[in-house]
Amino acid sequence: MRRSVVLHRVPFFETDAMGIVHHANYVRWLELARVAWMDEHDRPYREWVAQGFHFATTRVVVDYRRAVAFDDRVAIATWLDWVAGASLAMAYEIDREGERVATARTEHALVGTDGRPRRLPAPRRAGLEALAASRGRQREARRAKTT
Amino acid sequence: MRRSVVLHRVPFFETDAMGIVHHANYVRWLELARVAWMDEHDRPYREWVAQGFHFATTRVVVDYRRAVAFDDRVAIATWLDWVAGASLAMAYEIDREGERVATARTEHALVGTDGRPRRLPAPRRAGLEALAASRGRQREARRAKTT
Amino acid sequence: MRRSVVLHRVPFFETDAMGIVHHANYVRWLELARVAWMDEHDRPYREWVAQGFHFATTRVVVDYRRAVAFDDRVAIATWLDWVAGASLAMAYEIDREGERVATARTEHALVGTDGRPRRLPAPRRAGLEALAASRGRQREARRAKTT
Amino acid sequence: MRRSVVLHRVPFFETDAMGIVHHANYVRWLELARVAWMDEHDRPYREWVAQGFHFATTRVVVDYRRAVAFDDRVAIATWLDWVAGASLAMAYEIDREGERVATARTEHALVGTDGRPRRLPAPRRAGLEALAASRGRQREARRAKTT
Repeated sequence: MRRSVVLHRVPFFETDAMGIVHHANYVRWLELARVAWMDEHDRPYREWVAQGFHFATTRVVVDYRRAVAFDDRVAIATWLDWVAGASLAMAYEIDREGERVATARTEHALVGTDGRPRRLPAPRRAGLEALAASRGRQREARRAKTT
Repeated sequence: MRRSVVLHRVPFFETDAMGIVHHANYVRWLELARVAWMDEHDRPYREWVAQGFHFATTRVVVDYRRAVAFDDRVAIATWLDWVAGASLAMAYEIDREGERVATARTEHALVGTDGRPRRLPAPRRAGLEALAASRGRQREARRAKTT
Repeated sequence: MRRSVVLHRVPFFETDAMGIVHHANYVRWLELARVAWMDEHDRPYREWVAQGFHFATTRVVVDYRRAVAFDDRVAIATWLDWVAGASLAMAYEIDREGERVATARTEHALVGTDGRPRRLPAPRRAGLEALAASRGRQREARRAKTT
Repeated sequence: MRRSVVLHRVPFFETDAMGIVHHANYVRWLELARVAWMDEHDRPYREWVAQGFHFATTRVVVDYRRAVAFDDRVAIATWLDWVAGASLAMAYEIDREGERVATARTEHALVGTDGRPRRLPAPRRAGLEALAASRGRQREARRAKTT
């Protein structure tokens, strides 16, 4: 299981009037981590885009455990959970100085520039499967358990 | 079950380079609907805030079904699913001209201005329970089924 | 001079840890007002986009006079200040219950989907000029004075 | 004149349906640079906040020269232009691989947690003045010329 970790220093503009980071911003952090993961383990996301593909987000789940404040340093870790014919799932752990502040999962469908689903080219899928934490039936069980 | 519906015309700044609304923005739409629900069925959120309370978001689940584009009109419907001693859950349906584009759920914990959990004052809880779609064991079953 | 006015109720997610609306959000409000102005006085912005045009923003000036809080109601008024061969400028006044909270100006260049400048088609330019508050040398003087 | 430079890799969520970074996001970039400047030349902004102060933004001017795309690397440079009794101005240059993509200026007023203006404590003001690019009458001239 190959993980990528992005370090993020919380900017003031991500906070809200509760004095902490607004929860919608975590969804953006997940994207920062996904892009880094593709850089390190697959290929840069800009290359997918240059070839007319996007990974449309079909599901987001975030569990918030601790509030995060301005200027806190968080580490967003991500890995590929599973990959299927035209979709994949990523899992995430967000920590602040060793303390877990949130966990998350996202699911994505490969689409063309017209927004219509595309199947993953076979070699790309094989490459991704070698990186996935879960496979086959395991995947379904995992999905039921973790969401 | 009391629902509130917020109408939202998609601004250009909510779109991304895929040409559609960026998925993180849906999480913000849910907040617009919650605030409207409290106005209509509970009390304005600014009054909770004025009394030193916030509903911290502890969980977000969004299932995306259809892409939404600039200038589309969406309707975000919300209702209270369940309420417990210090927390509650809202459910959401997002439609565009009668077509379902997304569903979502959020969970929230009542906190003070210090960020620490607070129990719902008994009369408020009773008032909210009367508005909830699910109760008691039903609640847990519902949670298992819908997330 | 034809004005358009957009009413906006401040969502919680626009606030920051100072307890007020983060200043970057005002720039988004200006866009809401521009889109409404085009609907009412020119043609819907989605039609420009459908024809392969965008108005790229080349300059933004915002003067902030009063802080704005969660749940405040603001009115963003806008009008066309001037139009030239391939560009135009909009002016804005933002009020809360009759009190001026900010003023702003933006300048825009017409571009194609390739991002390159395009000249305004002559009939469109003539139509816009009839709506502009300033003309010819007046325009330059106004620019010097107001920015 | 002491400058600070922040490097920023453009995330996908900052783009819009024109395929480039939405102009409102540049205003957020300026904040990243200011916070870095205070870290390096004054004191961390979180310390100002911890002492009950904020620098409220009173003016923003951004001139956009080149579009910026997903995954571009930009460098946001900033310096203190002038400081007065209760306010200061920052200037900015944003480059992408040596090409200027935007310039900007912001002005700020020191306020307390109640949002009311505060004068800069004399030693802090003296310290800041030693870092400012412009002084006295120069400041006014500069303001007239550059905005």
